[in-house]
Amino acid sequence: MTPAAAVPEPEPHGPGELFRAEVREQPEALLRLLEHEADFASVSRALVDRAPSIVRLVGHGSSDAAASYGVYALGLLPAWTAMRDSISLSVYYDAKLDLSESVVVALSQSGETPDVVEYVARARSRGALTVAVTNAPESELGRAADAALPLSAGPERAVAATKTYVNQLAALALLAGGAAGRGGELADGLRRVAELLAGALDPLERAVPAVAMAFAFVGRMYVIGRGIEFATAREVALKLTETCRVAAEPLTATDLAHGPVAALDALFPVWTIASRDESLPAVVDAAARVREAGASVVASGNAADAIEGAAFALPVPEAPHSILAPLLSVVPGQLFAAALAQAKGFDADYPAGLSKVTRAR
Amino acid sequence: MTPAAAVPEPEPHGPGELFRAEVREQPEALLRLLEHEADFASVSRALVDRAPSIVRLVGHGSSDAAASYGVYALGLLPAWTAMRDSISLSVYYDAKLDLSESVVVALSQSGETPDVVEYVARARSRGALTVAVTNAPESELGRAADAALPLSAGPERAVAATKTYVNQLAALALLAGGAAGRGGELADGLRRVAELLAGALDPLERAVPAVAMAFAFVGRMYVIGRGIEFATAREVALKLTETCRVAAEPLTATDLAHGPVAALDALFPVWTIASRDESLPAVVDAAARVREAGASVVASGNAADAIEGAAFALPVPEAPHSILAPLLSVVPGQLFAAALAQAKGFDADYPAGLSKVTRAR
Repeated sequence: MTPAAAVPEPEPHGPGELFRAEVREQPEALLRLLEHEADFASVSRALVDRAPSIVRLVGHGSSDAAASYGVYALGLLPAWTAMRDSISLSVYYDAKLDLSESVVVALSQSGETPDVVEYVARARSRGALTVAVTNAPESELGRAADAALPLSAGPERAVAATKTYVNQLAALALLAGGAAGRGGELADGLRRVAELLAGALDPLERAVPAVAMAFAFVGRMYVIGRGIEFATAREVALKLTETCRVAAEPLTATDLAHGPVAALDALFPVWTIASRDESLPAVVDAAARVREAGASVVASGNAADAIEGAAFALPVPEAPHSILAPLLSVVPGQLFAAALAQAKGFDADYPAGLSKVTRAR
Repeated sequence: MTPAAAVPEPEPHGPGELFRAEVREQPEALLRLLEHEADFASVSRALVDRAPSIVRLVGHGSSDAAASYGVYALGLLPAWTAMRDSISLSVYYDAKLDLSESVVVALSQSGETPDVVEYVARARSRGALTVAVTNAPESELGRAADAALPLSAGPERAVAATKTYVNQLAALALLAGGAAGRGGELADGLRRVAELLAGALDPLERAVPAVAMAFAFVGRMYVIGRGIEFATAREVALKLTETCRVAAEPLTATDLAHGPVAALDALFPVWTIASRDESLPAVVDAAARVREAGASVVASGNAADAIEGAAFALPVPEAPHSILAPLLSVVPGQLFAAALAQAKGFDADYPAGLSKVTRAR
């Protein structure tokens, strides 16, 4: 028997301090990931050798939001079909899918999410090439997969993910870029994103408290994105739900029109993520529909200025490639969540009923 | 020039009467679909001949909820990989995916949803075998696809879909069953479902007003399902959002634990869909977590009795095959939405800001 590892006592800190510190640490965490550029390039080459007919992305919570980004990064860079796969179909129902032409990319901060580990073990035994992307490459997930890539975000102590989410996006961009023979270009782009992020933090942190004051009594929100920014909508909605106890639902700009717009009113505001790319017109249209319904709009993203009549705008700098925009677009939502939790008297570091490693089935 | 077709004046009706009548008409609509069993069998054979490496399902709103069901029906019956595909990836971003081994199944009640039509046209030109499943086979979508299958639900006049949704599930079950060489068995199962449905309507309609009274002031809900019942969770949440203006978000039982559980309290109840299959333990666990958080639980589905401590139970009969359970599980949610809209003084037939054919991009 070996003695249990000593768990270090956290230093004393005020409510939300860990969460905010980890948001601020994101540029540095991103550069740490880029030190492993060669590891990502090597796994990308293995993926190209496999010539997958499909890439299956799995994860829960923030990792599943990152998987939404992976669908676009892999679709647009190597032009591969990628999907957020159903975990229950193989883990619960034991579906007999042919995985011989599949690549699996499993995302988990802790590497200990039970059904993600089980999914990978089954997929590997059925012939898929499996890659774990985790902040803990020595974890159960890392050991279950053919290859384990490190997120290198450093310890994440706030329960709600921030820097591990941004590094998951970066990891997927590197993998997809490498598979398209453009790994170096994407890595350079990510280095530039780290600089832009570092410069954006202060102005955003100064801007969010005014928005949070206005939202102190909001109980329901939609968060709207489209295309590559749907991942951002999912992640921002999750942050607001976890840390601020707002019922914040992510929707594509188009889905809003197919039903949910009917529920909007002056007490049901909408956060929009507007980035300068092919999906922007859909987001602009959706924001107009929101205003017609009498609801307030917050505009974020590098095209925040394109959203007319927004009550608040939280713009971010434009990324060197449009595919990298989501690494910047998520930051206003993270900082707003921290400010709103504070305005409501909640501790963003420890949301009610959650723990850092979720073992739920 | 031909004169414009005369639009028949609807007969006078009270609020929500169209919606309720269409819910009640579902057994009959299902039998109408089954008259086309041979058409479905013939398209299933064409799909088998194509031997797709992937089936791409597309649709918005209720059609997208039905697509979630298709992932499981196709995964469990012919053991094919199916995904809800990104429409924006091809329609907005023009991603150069190889679709030569793909089958597309496009779902649209009206057959006029612009980006679904555009998606199908592009997929067909890139080599996919495309199938439209629509209540209007002569529609633009029907003409754009290689094959058009009728929903045969009859005119749906309430804006929120009900009988077309159930017939979409039936259509997907028939297609998947046919692809697995079990089309006749599934058709027989659906005939039995129509009988069970007809018998379940009266008791459910008597049971829902008491639940609606208790929920008259609820502004936010989660709707929880897992596996094949995630489609039901999505559809019930959409009905509640559209017709009752509740912020109702669908979640898998597992996703609830990865964040949203933190937002629950006594004013934030959870609707659970519990069906007797491999995913039931996950739903039972999630319901226990909901009660720990101090929120009320409504239990629906054929295993409603397995949810301990539910404030209300709305059970349905067990389907002849577990894969057909979702056709029954959705009905309590539909009837509850009608009753809650009435309790709130809303007209379930005409949700604010929506129209029957959504032309939004």
